[in-house]
Amino acid sequence: MYDKFKEEVCHANKRLKENNLVRWTSGNVSYRLPETDLVIIKPSGVHFDELTFESMVVVTLDGEVVEGDLKPSVDTESHLYVYRHLSHVNSIIHTHSPFATSFAIRGESIPAYTTTAANVFGESVPCSDYATIGEHEIGKEIVKHIGSGPAILLRNHGVFTVGSSIEKALKAAVILEEVAEYAYYATLQEPNIKPLPEEVVAACYEFYTTSYGQKLK
Amino acid sequence: MYDKFKEEVCHANKRLKENNLVRWTSGNVSYRLPETDLVIIKPSGVHFDELTFESMVVVTLDGEVVEGDLKPSVDTESHLYVYRHLSHVNSIIHTHSPFATSFAIRGESIPAYTTTAANVFGESVPCSDYATIGEHEIGKEIVKHIGSGPAILLRNHGVFTVGSSIEKALKAAVILEEVAEYAYYATLQEPNIKPLPEEVVAACYEFYTTSYGQKLK
Amino acid sequence: MYDKFKEEVCHANKRLKENNLVRWTSGNVSYRLPETDLVIIKPSGVHFDELTFESMVVVTLDGEVVEGDLKPSVDTESHLYVYRHLSHVNSIIHTHSPFATSFAIRGESIPAYTTTAANVFGESVPCSDYATIGEHEIGKEIVKHIGSGPAILLRNHGVFTVGSSIEKALKAAVILEEVAEYAYYATLQEPNIKPLPEEVVAACYEFYTTSYGQKLK
Amino acid sequence: MYDKFKEEVCHANKRLKENNLVRWTSGNVSYRLPETDLVIIKPSGVHFDELTFESMVVVTLDGEVVEGDLKPSVDTESHLYVYRHLSHVNSIIHTHSPFATSFAIRGESIPAYTTTAANVFGESVPCSDYATIGEHEIGKEIVKHIGSGPAILLRNHGVFTVGSSIEKALKAAVILEEVAEYAYYATLQEPNIKPLPEEVVAACYEFYTTSYGQKLK
Repeated sequence: MYDKFKEEVCHANKRLKENNLVRWTSGNVSYRLPETDLVIIKPSGVHFDELTFESMVVVTLDGEVVEGDLKPSVDTESHLYVYRHLSHVNSIIHTHSPFATSFAIRGESIPAYTTTAANVFGESVPCSDYATIGEHEIGKEIVKHIGSGPAILLRNHGVFTVGSSIEKALKAAVILEEVAEYAYYATLQEPNIKPLPEEVVAACYEFYTTSYGQKLK
Repeated sequence: MYDKFKEEVCHANKRLKENNLVRWTSGNVSYRLPETDLVIIKPSGVHFDELTFESMVVVTLDGEVVEGDLKPSVDTESHLYVYRHLSHVNSIIHTHSPFATSFAIRGESIPAYTTTAANVFGESVPCSDYATIGEHEIGKEIVKHIGSGPAILLRNHGVFTVGSSIEKALKAAVILEEVAEYAYYATLQEPNIKPLPEEVVAACYEFYTTSYGQKLK
Repeated sequence: MYDKFKEEVCHANKRLKENNLVRWTSGNVSYRLPETDLVIIKPSGVHFDELTFESMVVVTLDGEVVEGDLKPSVDTESHLYVYRHLSHVNSIIHTHSPFATSFAIRGESIPAYTTTAANVFGESVPCSDYATIGEHEIGKEIVKHIGSGPAILLRNHGVFTVGSSIEKALKAAVILEEVAEYAYYATLQEPNIKPLPEEVVAACYEFYTTSYGQKLK
Repeated sequence: MYDKFKEEVCHANKRLKENNLVRWTSGNVSYRLPETDLVIIKPSGVHFDELTFESMVVVTLDGEVVEGDLKPSVDTESHLYVYRHLSHVNSIIHTHSPFATSFAIRGESIPAYTTTAANVFGESVPCSDYATIGEHEIGKEIVKHIGSGPAILLRNHGVFTVGSSIEKALKAAVILEEVAEYAYYATLQEPNIKPLPEEVVAACYEFYTTSYGQKLK
């Protein structure tokens, strides 16, 4: 019934691997079906190259499985909490991309050192407090700390990104690791390097949001 | 006679390369045939992309070659010592994955800085003392230091992982390098960064062991 | 009408990805059509693997679109400013390659630590001041700071390279990241390491320009 | 006439790229034809994926081109000097692999921090003094500093490896970068870390030379 959307979620999960954001079976993409209370999510512990659209799991916002033979991701409740509390979010992505995760280990946010970071995140990418996997604690931390941008570091764990579409959540996940990589290199070499001033970050974000790509968002 | 299992061992060896855990001909996967005293292991000095299931070598637990035209890995006796002393181990993997090996050069264990590390290893990944290649010294070091987790760093050498199945040993090898990579980044930036508290690591491990994937282990 | 050249620009854009110089849709290649006032450039926000020669955009030196259904790159005005002011430049490339960008974050030029750097750049790769995306500010910074070599770091942003041909601009982009990578490693380990003396750099550049490759340039 | 050997040299050049040891057109493999004074080498400035066996250049030990339509590598005279002075060398490889080159920038040799380094190099990989490209200066530096192992760092330039066969020179080039990578990580984290003691290195080398692979060398 939701085959087209399952195919999109399946494909987006595979792109996590192609973009070197995940290893083994960790990491996942979910999507809220338009005008429903249903979410499609990766099954737990399945290799990315073995995923098929049929293996995607459909759950209600309360976590009941309504379609699919497999158990959904152990991060499902984290995703659902965010969907229940942030109505503009229609896709959530979780990775352990290594440079971003190294900031999450240190409990440090990632300030905007480049125009790219300013364009896509509009502010420092925040870092949450520690939260336990499996229940809604992680979701709570995300909602509490995420700010107005599409990404958050989860303390001692990894990365969550959100978007109004799968494409936007995926873009945030890919570019977060780009931004984390050169931020790491630069701050390791020069610990007190200044990020871009707040007003520059705001101007970049405004310009990018209205001018980049093929249509206004 | 053991073609199906040779195929699995051959395939697992190739996955070491696909996961960027090995270069040239170094590194190897072995497997203990169920309910026998026989072990299948990679031949010595053969390139991963030239491996075929026929080239796999079958040896007894005492190191006698019972099938195969090629000489087994120079690490064979190290593997066999572990099989003889740890009855729950049915697969052993050896790599020189670079971030993990940098900890092995320094003789440092890798504490759990992330939930992923806690989930998969359940404690710090220990580091052995130095041992000579070729005889059972390496095996002895592994048995002595490995603890309850599936991985150990071998001092000034590289990595060994173990599992009740090839899949589990391979998972440990892949995730050890993930964990070593961001642990390296974070501790280089902030040398005294605290790992997760022991009770948190234990809770993560317990949750993951019982809840992750498609069935209880 | 310019299909052959559009094909070349399209192909060069894809090579940015193959050489790991770009992620997602960032980065672009442009080319000035011989003996015209026209420039071909990548469309804005399109994935590299979805680019076709038909999707390339042809603009005048003043920024008017004369061919193509898509909006050109947001960096178009930056490219055009350079073409208007540097008549020997026929191709411009923009990337965020990570090691080079880490120098751009710090506002540091990259001195020639190797013969390769001396051969290809002939001097330190300079770093500009900060400039706003979208109008001609970036172009002005490039023209002001680029010196006689084919590459410049753009402060808190990324990399621009130029050439009399696409091939030369692309070569500069690829080798800049090579040079930035080992310069980063060496200077992180030993901050005061000396670059090659100026006279050695000049001799390398002279030798390479006259002797490398299959014909004199 | 030497098609089989040209094919082997062509293939070995492509393997430099597959092993991420080279970028763009830099780096090269040469081979001394058995029982002749002739050497096959990569042409200058040609992309690795465009190389064909016909494009390989055959030169005498004095540098005269005897077969091939293209100009040989600018490093040809460096290779030939080594062949003229080291009769056991039948293949030479040159790369700019990044971790090894970072040691060459600093003028530092790479001690044996792992059994792998001890096995393959038998001693610290030495670093030469600076030498000019194009004439026999580089060759002289290699012969003067290379010691008994198969690899040398060329100051402010890159890497040369040698072997009695192409396979052995290529193995040294691949494993040198492995060894340089984790040596870099470990020494950056802990600058005074001790390498393996000399007698351990010697024992490893002896064991490996007589026991590794499918036949005695």
